[in-house]
Amino acid sequence: MNENALLKSFETLFHQSADVQTGPGDDCAVISRGNTTLLAAADQLIGQIHYYLDTPPRLAAAKLLKRNLSDIAAMGGVPRWALCTLACKDCSAKWMQEFFAGLEECAKQFNVSIIGGDLAELPAAGQVSTLTILGEAPSDEICLRSNAVPGEIVCVTGVLGDSLKSEHHLHFTPRLAEGRFLAQNHFTRCMMDLSDGLAADLPRLLEKSACGAIIDLDTLPRRNGCSLENALADGEDYELLFTVKESVLEQLQKQWQFAEAFTPIGRITSERGSLKYCSNGQEKDFKGVKGYEHFTV
Amino acid sequence: MNENALLKSFETLFHQSADVQTGPGDDCAVISRGNTTLLAAADQLIGQIHYYLDTPPRLAAAKLLKRNLSDIAAMGGVPRWALCTLACKDCSAKWMQEFFAGLEECAKQFNVSIIGGDLAELPAAGQVSTLTILGEAPSDEICLRSNAVPGEIVCVTGVLGDSLKSEHHLHFTPRLAEGRFLAQNHFTRCMMDLSDGLAADLPRLLEKSACGAIIDLDTLPRRNGCSLENALADGEDYELLFTVKESVLEQLQKQWQFAEAFTPIGRITSERGSLKYCSNGQEKDFKGVKGYEHFTV
Repeated sequence: MNENALLKSFETLFHQSADVQTGPGDDCAVISRGNTTLLAAADQLIGQIHYYLDTPPRLAAAKLLKRNLSDIAAMGGVPRWALCTLACKDCSAKWMQEFFAGLEECAKQFNVSIIGGDLAELPAAGQVSTLTILGEAPSDEICLRSNAVPGEIVCVTGVLGDSLKSEHHLHFTPRLAEGRFLAQNHFTRCMMDLSDGLAADLPRLLEKSACGAIIDLDTLPRRNGCSLENALADGEDYELLFTVKESVLEQLQKQWQFAEAFTPIGRITSERGSLKYCSNGQEKDFKGVKGYEHFTV
Repeated sequence: MNENALLKSFETLFHQSADVQTGPGDDCAVISRGNTTLLAAADQLIGQIHYYLDTPPRLAAAKLLKRNLSDIAAMGGVPRWALCTLACKDCSAKWMQEFFAGLEECAKQFNVSIIGGDLAELPAAGQVSTLTILGEAPSDEICLRSNAVPGEIVCVTGVLGDSLKSEHHLHFTPRLAEGRFLAQNHFTRCMMDLSDGLAADLPRLLEKSACGAIIDLDTLPRRNGCSLENALADGEDYELLFTVKESVLEQLQKQWQFAEAFTPIGRITSERGSLKYCSNGQEKDFKGVKGYEHFTV
């Protein structure tokens, strides 16, 4: 059983109360609160998986928060509050203090209040931290994975690939301003963040939207020197993937004033579940490029 | 550095936005939302620490949720939504499916929607699950650790001690109905749940309220056959500790219709930070009884 199959089985397992507009399966859950919504997401950061044991704890903690901020960005929301847990074995007080100092530093930068959490000891060596982010967004500006419409242009912020090698995975800036801009100005209703690589993440969006896509590999924005395969499959890009109607693309390009560019990379098609790649106008087979799988069981 | 000192240093580390009525340091964080409040707490459940590896995964998952529900109960709140993370190594699909089925079963029982979460793989053997609970309570009914007033009677629900031996730690019922009743009818403004044992938890309440207490050991409700020391220090009672004005105690006793009794066990004093025990009218020294410490660093 692979990760997608497992996650899918859990997505349908849990009943949802009437005020849960979007439950498990998007970047954040969405809870209706009148004209506004409460956004919520949880993510984990595991020592030796998401950072090396000699990574400065300040950077590890910031990464944990920024991963979650990226999920709020992908909904078009504003982050507000967070809860953080840490479980470790033989962590020094100094390590923990630096970890939480780094968390607070990053929280301040993005106007997030760390409102609670928990500490626990592990029975064996290891470091597991988790963060739950809470945010808000106006009800009519929420961007869901399920909102893509055939004919829309697929766009991505920034450049993709080589996240580990370039240390982008530690030093990235979550695209909160960009996500908010896109949502607030109704340029998109469909957005997600790229965490497992375009080749793994885009199919999730396509499945939720019951459509397909064709991606022009020649236009894919890649980090300097990064191969096409790595740009598609490395993961940890923390860039925004979104769709815009062709009729507003020019207007978006004019109004876009962020340091980081966005790039149109393809088009949504009506062929449900079909992700095609092309280059020089010819279809290319990249079926072997899967993106990052966390585990199989 | 012990756990309390470490936690205290973190409590003051994090800035809080104006709408955070109570940040880290109570059973839940409290966020003001007009006449109502949003409650939030996060807790962890570690394999081999909080349950044995042969504990049925359904019971482990229910324990994780119920620990968090107990925190909502302690605020006088109603639980609404939860996010759950699981990190493990070599967990079978069956184990995970039973874990999440147990989570959903318990969530249904208490009208909680599991709205999101995350799965991750650990680099080495182990199981770490976390849950963030979100709930609500009317603004004027919130029960804080800081609200105890000298002269008030200290009360506790149920019986204490021997939680592991009796398997109470797996099969307890969070005191949501009792907590809500106490808050809604304004019998108390000061409540917490007992998770590390009265000897560890009561001092936390006293510190927040800047007062002391004297506990009559002869009245302490103990599980069948449980020693006084174990009743004070075992932890995982998941009972409610609360204070009531002497003038309303009789009325509370009359109106209390729950299967589980509550017991007056002592009195709040004005002697800041002083926790005294007495028996047969004589002071007793129980300074060696500390309650459960999760770790020192």
